[in-house]
Amino acid sequence: MSVLIVGSTALDSIKTPKAENPRLLGGSASHAAVAASFFSPVKMIGVVGDDFPKRYLQLYRRHGIDLAGLQVRPGKTFHWSGEYEENMNRRRTLKTELGVFETFTPTLPAAHKQTPFVLLANIAPSLQHHVLDQMERPKFVAADTMDLWLNIALDDLLRLLKRIDALILNDGEAAQLTNETNVIAALPKLHKLGPRYVIVKKGEHGSILSSAAGVFIAPAYPLRKVVDPTGAGDSFAGGMMGYLASAKGTVEDAVRRAMIYGSVVASFCCEGFGLNRTTRLGRADIERRVRQLEKLAAF
Amino acid sequence: MSVLIVGSTALDSIKTPKAENPRLLGGSASHAAVAASFFSPVKMIGVVGDDFPKRYLQLYRRHGIDLAGLQVRPGKTFHWSGEYEENMNRRRTLKTELGVFETFTPTLPAAHKQTPFVLLANIAPSLQHHVLDQMERPKFVAADTMDLWLNIALDDLLRLLKRIDALILNDGEAAQLTNETNVIAALPKLHKLGPRYVIVKKGEHGSILSSAAGVFIAPAYPLRKVVDPTGAGDSFAGGMMGYLASAKGTVEDAVRRAMIYGSVVASFCCEGFGLNRTTRLGRADIERRVRQLEKLAAF
Repeated sequence: MSVLIVGSTALDSIKTPKAENPRLLGGSASHAAVAASFFSPVKMIGVVGDDFPKRYLQLYRRHGIDLAGLQVRPGKTFHWSGEYEENMNRRRTLKTELGVFETFTPTLPAAHKQTPFVLLANIAPSLQHHVLDQMERPKFVAADTMDLWLNIALDDLLRLLKRIDALILNDGEAAQLTNETNVIAALPKLHKLGPRYVIVKKGEHGSILSSAAGVFIAPAYPLRKVVDPTGAGDSFAGGMMGYLASAKGTVEDAVRRAMIYGSVVASFCCEGFGLNRTTRLGRADIERRVRQLEKLAAF
Repeated sequence: MSVLIVGSTALDSIKTPKAENPRLLGGSASHAAVAASFFSPVKMIGVVGDDFPKRYLQLYRRHGIDLAGLQVRPGKTFHWSGEYEENMNRRRTLKTELGVFETFTPTLPAAHKQTPFVLLANIAPSLQHHVLDQMERPKFVAADTMDLWLNIALDDLLRLLKRIDALILNDGEAAQLTNETNVIAALPKLHKLGPRYVIVKKGEHGSILSSAAGVFIAPAYPLRKVVDPTGAGDSFAGGMMGYLASAKGTVEDAVRRAMIYGSVVASFCCEGFGLNRTTRLGRADIERRVRQLEKLAAF
């Protein structure tokens, strides 16, 4: 089945202690869509300016991503620039230029409205609502978020949580949303806010799923070197949803392995700037690392 | 086979945001010995003062711990008091009174010198050396440590690393010892210092093993509530060594499950003050939680 993904489509200028890379392809929708494309057909909803490099459109197309829902508008593409500290765990934003993103109103092509799997990648909750309003009975809806929306759009976010099947967030956001620093204790509080599936991302420490079937502790693929973690969380969400949409059986049956696949795509994402490493992957590379992760975690 | 354990034997006065408990049984050797006792016969090496409560000696004996190597000396038992912050991840020491521990010279009864498994629990590296000097060809030696010894006894510690099979330390200590914040990248550097087995404890995020057979990512048992984490690392090391000493086959064959057992005993340790929860356990409680952890981590 196919996955509809809405989120930001951006140019990222990223500085790490080792290197500096201007105007990389970035944004939550870009990372999530490429990650999902290894498993299922993807329809992307987003907006770019008329400065958006043709080669990036070609990159989306090479991954078979349906761009009927990608608006190209006069003006500048959303541009984010940020800098990572020595240990790559903390970053600071140097500049955010919204450009055409400032007036983005996601409008779905008629053919997209019945897509069974929907990933509301990180973007303002009001826009996530706007996409969901246009969907016709999706089978499974997941939403990712970030601390910014908890700070400036909490009401919209809380309303959204009542409308989705799965919430994907990181441990810091889980603590902020529940006022509970123990992530295991935070899980029931997050379910109470709406979603049947709660997935907490813990970066290098893996991720945790909570659902009616109980808790699942997913390992992260161990990386000796992190080149650029930008988009890793989006890649996790995209890879997970792409795998879920491709799986036979119920979501509950497939969700643990879906997280492992998401985690593996995210590990590749961290090994290159922007999407540089991820776009060079084949499905065989992903399967190899999944098998490695099985061995690394077996006891 | 049996395990010889040397470390501190102390009285711990512990304050958490919820409660305060004076003069609990504590110390690295106490926690490790009780944890190991669920799996193998344990010989404990330590020192206490003549103020040491009889009921704590009885507690050791109830766990079948051989006390021939426990010196009872005139004076006061080592007394540590500390306070935990709200999220239980940080603690500060309020008071350390060494008492009879200040002049502790561990002397092994003749019958103890051929014990096949040796755990040098957290204690000054010079004392760990002193015990190792008295051992006659042990089969497997593991050492735990703490940041204090990295700061004030680094040379002794580095010499010790050449003499042991396994080093157990936490992620912060691994980073300090290798000047490498990425724990996966720190592993080969730690092997270069001596030990064939390196085990990095990451608290609620589980633990990582590195050996000739590769890396193992061990999950932690998810706890909704941490009452008192004091001694959890010692319980992990003790449970692991106790299981290893009980296992058939090679250390390499058993070490992954040994870490899981250590992790489960440590999870119980966190659920009560001092050793209150751990001492009420039976082997069946441990087996039940190991089976749960298998289910929680399966994919």
